[in-house]
Amino acid sequence: MVETVGYEDGVVRMLDQRRLPAETAYLSCRDHHQVAEAIRDMAIRGAPAIGVAAALGIVVGVRSLGADATPAAFDAICDELAATRPTAVNLFWAIARMRERHARERAQGGTRLAEGLLEEALAIQAEDLAACRRMGDLGAALIPDGARLLTHCNAGALATAGYGTALGVVRSAAREGKVRLVYADETRPYLQGARLTAWELMQDGIPTTLIADNMAGHLMARGEVDAVVVGADRIARNGDVANKIGTYTVAVLAKENGVPFYVAAPVSTFDLATATGADIPIEERAPQEVTHHGGRRLAPEGVGVRNPAFDVTPHRYVTAIVCERGIARPPYTESLARLAAGV
Amino acid sequence: MVETVGYEDGVVRMLDQRRLPAETAYLSCRDHHQVAEAIRDMAIRGAPAIGVAAALGIVVGVRSLGADATPAAFDAICDELAATRPTAVNLFWAIARMRERHARERAQGGTRLAEGLLEEALAIQAEDLAACRRMGDLGAALIPDGARLLTHCNAGALATAGYGTALGVVRSAAREGKVRLVYADETRPYLQGARLTAWELMQDGIPTTLIADNMAGHLMARGEVDAVVVGADRIARNGDVANKIGTYTVAVLAKENGVPFYVAAPVSTFDLATATGADIPIEERAPQEVTHHGGRRLAPEGVGVRNPAFDVTPHRYVTAIVCERGIARPPYTESLARLAAGV
Repeated sequence: MVETVGYEDGVVRMLDQRRLPAETAYLSCRDHHQVAEAIRDMAIRGAPAIGVAAALGIVVGVRSLGADATPAAFDAICDELAATRPTAVNLFWAIARMRERHARERAQGGTRLAEGLLEEALAIQAEDLAACRRMGDLGAALIPDGARLLTHCNAGALATAGYGTALGVVRSAAREGKVRLVYADETRPYLQGARLTAWELMQDGIPTTLIADNMAGHLMARGEVDAVVVGADRIARNGDVANKIGTYTVAVLAKENGVPFYVAAPVSTFDLATATGADIPIEERAPQEVTHHGGRRLAPEGVGVRNPAFDVTPHRYVTAIVCERGIARPPYTESLARLAAGV
Repeated sequence: MVETVGYEDGVVRMLDQRRLPAETAYLSCRDHHQVAEAIRDMAIRGAPAIGVAAALGIVVGVRSLGADATPAAFDAICDELAATRPTAVNLFWAIARMRERHARERAQGGTRLAEGLLEEALAIQAEDLAACRRMGDLGAALIPDGARLLTHCNAGALATAGYGTALGVVRSAAREGKVRLVYADETRPYLQGARLTAWELMQDGIPTTLIADNMAGHLMARGEVDAVVVGADRIARNGDVANKIGTYTVAVLAKENGVPFYVAAPVSTFDLATATGADIPIEERAPQEVTHHGGRRLAPEGVGVRNPAFDVTPHRYVTAIVCERGIARPPYTESLARLAAGV
C-alpha cells in the first residue's frame, strides 16, 4: 500500500492526491506553511490524514524555526494549521494533542521539545493506522456474504494513515471473501471516488464499479446494493455525522430502500462537545470546482454556484457507527459516550 | 429564444447542444441518417425535441430518396430513427404519427406525400411549442411567491420545440414575479444542467445557481428549496415517471423534506400502454461519459462503470403532473387517463 503521509529527516512527504490516478507524485514540505497549503489545496485530504499531516506540520514548523520556536511562535504554527479547513474535527484534535505535548515538554524544561513533538506526531500516525485496521476487522462483521457495497468519497488508505476507515471495513470484508463488488460514487465536485477510491480498490484487486453520484438511488431501488459504508469528518454527540457532500443523500436513499447505512470513523472523529450536526461548520469551497471539469470551464461564465464541501446526516439514518473500540448503535448519545470513554 | 430544431428547404437545422455553452453552432442534416446520428450522439436531446427531430428526419429522409421513397423505404427510415434512443416515448409517438400520415397520404394516392409529411412534422413542432406554453402557464399556479426552485437535467426550450416543460413552468412563474432563484443540478454525467439549463435560464435573466447533483439534498434539508420541477421522458399509466438519471433521488429527497415534487410533460410523454415504470426500458450509455471530464480521463483505466441514462420515479413521490391539458393529481391511473382522453 502507498504511504499517504510520512516524515523523514525534517521533511513531511505526502502523496499529491490532486494528481491521482494519472500520476503518483510526492510533495516534500519543509515547513508548516507548505503543509498548511497542501491541506488547504487538498493535496492531502480525509479527516484522519489531515490530522496526521497537521501534527507532522507542527514538527517541521518548530524545526524550521530552530531557536525562534518560542511558545508564541508555536501557537502561531498551530493556529495556521487549524485555519486550513473547518469541518473535520481530527485536525483540531491532533493539534490539541500536539499543544498538550508541547506544554508538557515545556513544563519539563523543554530540552526534548523537538523529539517529544515528533514522538507525539508519529504516535498519532501509528495509532490511526492501528485504529483503521481494528475498525476494519470489527466492521467486516456487519457485511453479509456476497455483498455489493456502496461507498461515497474516499475514506481509504489515502484518507488516513493507512488501510482506511470505510475502505478498511471493505478491505477486511474482502479478505474474508465477502465482497462481490464495490460501487464507488464518483463524488462531485472533487471526484475523490473516481480518482482515489477507484484507484485504491483496484490496487487491492477489489472489484470496483464507478458510478455518478446520482446513480446510487437507481441501483438501490433495483436491489443492487446490500450495504453502504462511508467515513466521517466529524460525529456530534447525538450521532449526527458530517461527511463529504452527498453523504446525506446516500443515507436517505439507503433508508428509503431498506439498505443498512454504516459509518466507520476513529474515536478522534467523535466531537462530544458538539451537541448536534447543526452546530458543525460546513466548509464552502471555490466555485471553480463545480464550473470546471478536467481543467476546462463547462458551465456558463457568471452563473451562481454553491459548493458546500460537506453535509450532515442526521443520526436517524445511521444504522451503526464502527470505531476502533467497537460498534455503536442507537441511541448514539449513550453508545458514543461509552466508546469515547473507553468503557 | 434560440430555435432548438427547425426545417428549411430540405434541411433539418439543429442547435448542436454538445457544444453549448462555449459555442452556439448549428448542424444541418440533409437526410435521416444524419438526424439519427445527431439524436444518438445527443447533439439534440430532450424527449419532446427528439420527437420533433425524428419527424423532421422522416421528412428529409423521404425527400433525399426522391422516387425511391417506397413504403418499404419509408418503414426503414422510421425504424432507423426509432432505434436511436429507447427511453423517451415521444420519439415513438412522433414516428407513429408520421406513419399514420404516410398511410393516409398513400391511401389518397400519394400525390401530396412529401407535403403531407412536412405538414405533419411542422404540426408536431407547433403543437409542442403551444403545449409547453400552456403547461408553463398552468404549472405556474403551483409555484409559491418568492420560490427557490430546483430542477434536474434540462427540460427547457432546448429539450422541446421551445419554451420548455419544467423550464416552461419556471419561465411562466418568473414572468409572474414568483421566482427568487433556480437551483440547477449539474446533472452528471452529461452535465445538461451545468451546460444547458444554466445557459438557458441566464439568457432569460432568471437567477440561477449551479450545484453538483449531490448538493440538492443538503439544500433541501436546510429548507432552501421550496419546490422541485422536472420534465419526463416517459410516464407510465400508473404515474411512474422515467426521467434523467438522478430524478428518482431528487424525488426521494423532496418527499423526505416535505418539498413538493412536480413533473411537467406534454401528453405525448404519457405511455398508457405501459402499466408501470418497471416496464420502461432504461438506456445504458458509454462508460466514457463517466470516466472522462472535459475530454480528459480522470478515473483509472480499466475501472468498471455503470451509466444508466434514466431512472424511474415511482408515482408515490410525485406531487402533481402538469401537462398542456391540466394538472394530474393522484391517483394517476385515473387522472392521466382522463387528461390523455382530453375529457
